Amino acid sequence: MTRPVQSRTSRSRPVWSLAAAAVALAAGVLAAPAALATAADADAGRRAFEAVDPFIGTGGEGHTFPGATVPFGMIQLSPDTEIKPRKEAYGWAAGYRHGDPTIVGFSHTHFSGTGHSDLGDVLVMPIAGEVKLERGDSKIARSGYRSAFRHDDEVAQPGYYAVTLDDYKIRAELTASERVGVHRYRFPEGQSAHVLLDLRTSLYDYPGKVLWSRVRLRPDGTVTGFRETRGWAPGRQLYFAMRFSRPVSGHAFHDTEADVAYKGFPPPGEKDPTRRAQIEGRQLVASLDFKDAPGQELIVKVAISPVSEDSAIANLDAEVPGFDFDRVRAQARERWSQALSAIDAEGDAAARKSFYTALYHTLMGPSLFMDSDGRYRGPDNAVHEAKGFRYHSTFSLWDTYRALHPLLTLVQPEQRNSDFVNSLLASRKHSPYGVLPVWSFHGQETWCMIGYHAVPVIADAYMKGIRGFDANEALEAMVASADYGPYDGIAQYKELGYVPIDEEGEAASKTLEYAFDDWTIARMAGAMGRKDVAARFEKRAGNWRHAFDPASGFMRARKRDGSFREPFDPSVSGYGSDYTEGNAWQYSWYVPQDVAGLAKAHGGADKLIARLDQVFEAKVDPKIFAHMEDITGLIGWYAHGNEPSHHVAYLYGYAGQPWRTQERLKQIMASQYAPRPDGLAGNDDLGQMSAWYVFTALGFYPVAPASNEYIIGRPFLPKATLNLPNGKRFSVIAEGLDEAHTYIGSATLNGQPLDRAFLRHEEILAGGELRFVMQAQPNREWASHPKQLPYSMSAAR
Amino acid sequence: MTRPVQSRTSRSRPVWSLAAAAVALAAGVLAAPAALATAADADAGRRAFEAVDPFIGTGGEGHTFPGATVPFGMIQLSPDTEIKPRKEAYGWAAGYRHGDPTIVGFSHTHFSGTGHSDLGDVLVMPIAGEVKLERGDSKIARSGYRSAFRHDDEVAQPGYYAVTLDDYKIRAELTASERVGVHRYRFPEGQSAHVLLDLRTSLYDYPGKVLWSRVRLRPDGTVTGFRETRGWAPGRQLYFAMRFSRPVSGHAFHDTEADVAYKGFPPPGEKDPTRRAQIEGRQLVASLDFKDAPGQELIVKVAISPVSEDSAIANLDAEVPGFDFDRVRAQARERWSQALSAIDAEGDAAARKSFYTALYHTLMGPSLFMDSDGRYRGPDNAVHEAKGFRYHSTFSLWDTYRALHPLLTLVQPEQRNSDFVNSLLASRKHSPYGVLPVWSFHGQETWCMIGYHAVPVIADAYMKGIRGFDANEALEAMVASADYGPYDGIAQYKELGYVPIDEEGEAASKTLEYAFDDWTIARMAGAMGRKDVAARFEKRAGNWRHAFDPASGFMRARKRDGSFREPFDPSVSGYGSDYTEGNAWQYSWYVPQDVAGLAKAHGGADKLIARLDQVFEAKVDPKIFAHMEDITGLIGWYAHGNEPSHHVAYLYGYAGQPWRTQERLKQIMASQYAPRPDGLAGNDDLGQMSAWYVFTALGFYPVAPASNEYIIGRPFLPKATLNLPNGKRFSVIAEGLDEAHTYIGSATLNGQPLDRAFLRHEEILAGGELRFVMQAQPNREWASHPKQLPYSMSAAR
Repeated sequence: MTRPVQSRTSRSRPVWSLAAAAVALAAGVLAAPAALATAADADAGRRAFEAVDPFIGTGGEGHTFPGATVPFGMIQLSPDTEIKPRKEAYGWAAGYRHGDPTIVGFSHTHFSGTGHSDLGDVLVMPIAGEVKLERGDSKIARSGYRSAFRHDDEVAQPGYYAVTLDDYKIRAELTASERVGVHRYRFPEGQSAHVLLDLRTSLYDYPGKVLWSRVRLRPDGTVTGFRETRGWAPGRQLYFAMRFSRPVSGHAFHDTEADVAYKGFPPPGEKDPTRRAQIEGRQLVASLDFKDAPGQELIVKVAISPVSEDSAIANLDAEVPGFDFDRVRAQARERWSQALSAIDAEGDAAARKSFYTALYHTLMGPSLFMDSDGRYRGPDNAVHEAKGFRYHSTFSLWDTYRALHPLLTLVQPEQRNSDFVNSLLASRKHSPYGVLPVWSFHGQETWCMIGYHAVPVIADAYMKGIRGFDANEALEAMVASADYGPYDGIAQYKELGYVPIDEEGEAASKTLEYAFDDWTIARMAGAMGRKDVAARFEKRAGNWRHAFDPASGFMRARKRDGSFREPFDPSVSGYGSDYTEGNAWQYSWYVPQDVAGLAKAHGGADKLIARLDQVFEAKVDPKIFAHMEDITGLIGWYAHGNEPSHHVAYLYGYAGQPWRTQERLKQIMASQYAPRPDGLAGNDDLGQMSAWYVFTALGFYPVAPASNEYIIGRPFLPKATLNLPNGKRFSVIAEGLDEAHTYIGSATLNGQPLDRAFLRHEEILAGGELRFVMQAQPNREWASHPKQLPYSMSAAR
Repeated sequence: MTRPVQSRTSRSRPVWSLAAAAVALAAGVLAAPAALATAADADAGRRAFEAVDPFIGTGGEGHTFPGATVPFGMIQLSPDTEIKPRKEAYGWAAGYRHGDPTIVGFSHTHFSGTGHSDLGDVLVMPIAGEVKLERGDSKIARSGYRSAFRHDDEVAQPGYYAVTLDDYKIRAELTASERVGVHRYRFPEGQSAHVLLDLRTSLYDYPGKVLWSRVRLRPDGTVTGFRETRGWAPGRQLYFAMRFSRPVSGHAFHDTEADVAYKGFPPPGEKDPTRRAQIEGRQLVASLDFKDAPGQELIVKVAISPVSEDSAIANLDAEVPGFDFDRVRAQARERWSQALSAIDAEGDAAARKSFYTALYHTLMGPSLFMDSDGRYRGPDNAVHEAKGFRYHSTFSLWDTYRALHPLLTLVQPEQRNSDFVNSLLASRKHSPYGVLPVWSFHGQETWCMIGYHAVPVIADAYMKGIRGFDANEALEAMVASADYGPYDGIAQYKELGYVPIDEEGEAASKTLEYAFDDWTIARMAGAMGRKDVAARFEKRAGNWRHAFDPASGFMRARKRDGSFREPFDPSVSGYGSDYTEGNAWQYSWYVPQDVAGLAKAHGGADKLIARLDQVFEAKVDPKIFAHMEDITGLIGWYAHGNEPSHHVAYLYGYAGQPWRTQERLKQIMASQYAPRPDGLAGNDDLGQMSAWYVFTALGFYPVAPASNEYIIGRPFLPKATLNLPNGKRFSVIAEGLDEAHTYIGSATLNGQPLDRAFLRHEEILAGGELRFVMQAQPNREWASHPKQLPYSMSAAR
């Protein structure tokens, strides 16, 4: 069963349908990308598609990948340039680094923008001539199966990637549907043609990571298999199936594990052990021969499944029944055009490239992780069936609750957002701990980072009127997660009102983030009329105060006895400190639920602003964060490369000085993003960095998810129109915007003067036009009065 | 869903039904074993039950276990006295050795009588007082969690085992239903009560055997988990669920694996890492505390599943909903009484003990391996659903095709025999190699031993009129298996008519056994009217001739060039030799499909007999087989402890000298079996040794399965009545049998003189009476004429 592309029936803008694409394909119109581009010239979605540059973020520490996927696709098929051992793996979290000279193969699962990593499953490499079983050394030509490549030969578009493997003179192209990766290889004449399948490799590699694996050549030429790894998620099982457009004329299955205590009796074929029909073990590599492929094309289809090899075959057959690479590519292009057309952005080429690539990167995850029959594997590592929703996984929640999920409520259909919530609830239902996901992928929990940030994702969706889930079940799951004592000091947090640093690390960060999450429970419970729950969590929402040290003006960790831990150095970050991936300078502003209270604690909004200036204007030697890979993108202490800083520039606006926010945003946008491979200041973190960009470019940002308010920053595009899931359009126009005119002079909403620094979610959903008149000098009066501030600041000054 | 005990509706003998047992239980009649025995006094099944001594075979190298199971039960729950590393594991293949002083725990899966081994899953040990996590040393008291025990305190009955764990003063009792093991522990007063669960242990243990495992304490107190091992079958997954009659008051989950490269982020509870709700890893041991158990009983129910933890829970609930140990025990007793009542055997206590214990040991496998919902795991390691049959596994086919499966067609309902065939066919359908099982357990293939002996099992069933399977599918599977070139030299066998020793080991044995298997295909194909298939395999059935060396009179291995391999020593056995677990003296008589031809090859029946005498009368130093664990039970070269010899004593009868068979059988029965723990001359091999005993005691034996003929030996019981699956009865009476009168003087079948040395299967199925008059001296005339010989010998002399 293949689901149609999500349709938004009530919208008026032109929508390319799959049917239209099919007709075009049949007519030969879509035979080549060039033809496609021509046919799409008038279409905003197509223009959006063309603006994307998947290489942005593949250099530096962006950790994005350039390969082929569809929006939220289960398959994220991409070239890997190196498989690094664990201690060197940070830079290769997405498998590909733009500066590398060789490609080791194309694997089918990747994270977009993580710091920690895993995946890189089912690595496939086409080979012409001699088959080598080891990857070799990138510095020694032809020392292994890897191949040199050149960026000149690379093409990367949403849903499509192509490269020439120079060592083999093989042109390799990749595309994907939701659950199937499709490869097209053109082999040179005169050399034998092979496909290597290496199940030993993993992103974030270390000895013993592969627990068990299997490859099987079926009589019909289908290759299926399985791999179980003890990676970031322990005991993760992944199944796969591969089919080929040409017969497999020979095969060799190798187990390169040494020193196995006992291997049992050999299966048939052991006279030539590599020729057996199946192999099982911990270090498997397979080569497949295609004797009629030299000088020809070979199409390789690969499906994955969390459930079984048979389910992988079913996924393969359901989505890509034939071997029509161009059709799959056209369908992927259509899906992307559709998804990217959620925003019509105007601007110069560089701005549109940055903007649409950011939007593209926000549509990678949470990704589908469910078979075509609805089955998936939950955090109990058992198989379940999704009923009435599509199970998604890869929840990088500590990152994505901030801006990514709020953005997706604006640019993706309600159904997708409900799927996210239902997936969180299903995961909680099957959690051995009875809690919502923390950082999960492929259905499995990693317990990475802190907080219970599935809570604000659900609350934000609920508050925005998304209703495709059981709100009572959701609230119960949120409360259960917030009350689960054994997790990261929650028992003590409930007892003391803060997490005590003498019993739990990074206690200041935990207290602050728990308090925010609690506030979102209170918001949702209040909206549901559950006053008891609302009152209890409203109270907990104030627990940030227990972290505030009036003497130093920083958020700090207390000990069980109530005293702050000494000695205290606000510059200290990292393991053992009071903070999670941050220091006091970075974490002390995290009270999105009560910026008024934060300002008051500091002695007033002006005092808070003065502190923010200290953050941005400090002289900081970046070496102080040499031990913390994730703290990057420094402007003073402000670290745009990591999430705790993401709301900070917007706090000026809360404090009645939106023009200061406007200045800071200009500074950040100019220094932290660029339309180049190394154009991201830090890990994209499953789209959170990019979601920040999209919101900021539009001119507003969701500092406090579940508040239904967006603080206004300033627009970075002359015009952008949100094509909303409800079919309405909401445009943001920046009159007179240019490099010299970057301050908001005045604003109107639907023609009425707008003299406040925030938008309500309902105002966006209603459709309409937000028009800014930009000017060269700041307007210090605009939106500076308390009544013009967001409700969470309205009692402040 | 619990299936009722198999009923044989058309039979007249008294049948204890489950319903009757339930009524008796309700009335309190079955409240205690004593009451049960009283109520059953008049019943042959009950007497049979009482005659069984499960300790027979637990000493020496019988490798049986004394624990609790029901006939063909998925759970075979038994004490393990030691967990030995691989190189010392042979004697501990069933976990228990009668000579050992300590018990390390009770595990839920065992093979009955294997040489090679595996299993010992879900090892549970009750502990009073301090919890130790390691087994310790049997020579050092209280050095670990093991406990001393004494045989005086042991009780073993079919479906029940009890022992006192002296170190803890815990009385432990075990019983079982098909998929659930039930433990009853009585803890002493004054010490804390615990249950240890060790997932690290395995029968046939070696480093790295456990690939992955998991234990989870669910909020309702159910403990579930999973273990995956690379054992005899690679990548075997087994799930389990445990429930307790008292609340779990505390738990500690430990991972004792050292030097793990990376463990990911700790799950909640890590402050006290043992207290987390779930643990995953490769070396797990868990202790569970029961604070209200001291001085009390604790019932522990354990179910296993090949599919999932949830399925294990479903199995638990379907079969044993409460905690009524005595009810489960009574049901197990009823199942055994029912199954053992298939034969009413008369004789003295020792004879009945040996006979019924042998019959008991023939009812262990192939065992059920399917969840209550019909799902099982096949040889592709994928989950399938059995439709219209119950999936069984543990097929030790090289052993059991000889006499065990033929016996089960007489003593088990047609449905069970059809289930075996359907299970073989299902396994073949899901085999990555497209072939029938060779040696499989838990659905997985081990490739142990040689031949394609699922073929004679199916052919024998078909020839006997068992029809609960698709004969066309079966024949296709048999042919596919016999034609599968990559397996053990079949390609060469098809090409040359023999397996060439320069290309494949143990080639003489393979050629001989393939030829027999081929003959059974011909038999079945002929009966189905498939003349083409029959003719092709009839021809292959003659391939034994290619192994016969007229010069030496031995079966030998040829090389591809047609010459026999030199040098040749008929005493040489073992790896690298021409033979599988045997030598030329043992393997040269394996032509059950054409004893006439064999005799003719030797120059006539008398010459063959002279050779057989050389076999039995040779002076052989057993040390010659010191390197071959399985070659035991020597009488000359004859090795009753291993299967290639099992038909040899009967060949005299084929050759017209049945009195010589009678002599040899007396010699074998007297020397190779005894009603003692060390009373089996070799591994029971899933009941093959015992099936030989049962047939031989009855007076006939199936030398050539699928022939529908049984060669007559001599009876060892004064009277035995087969209560046949079709409801008929067939009695064998030995008039005048005593120690001095051991030769058949004359025989009648249903009152008519019987002057031939074989029975037809149809004659047994028709019911009736076979009466022998025994005498002190051999009757050299009886059944000695060619026309009185089995059809396969009728052309011989």
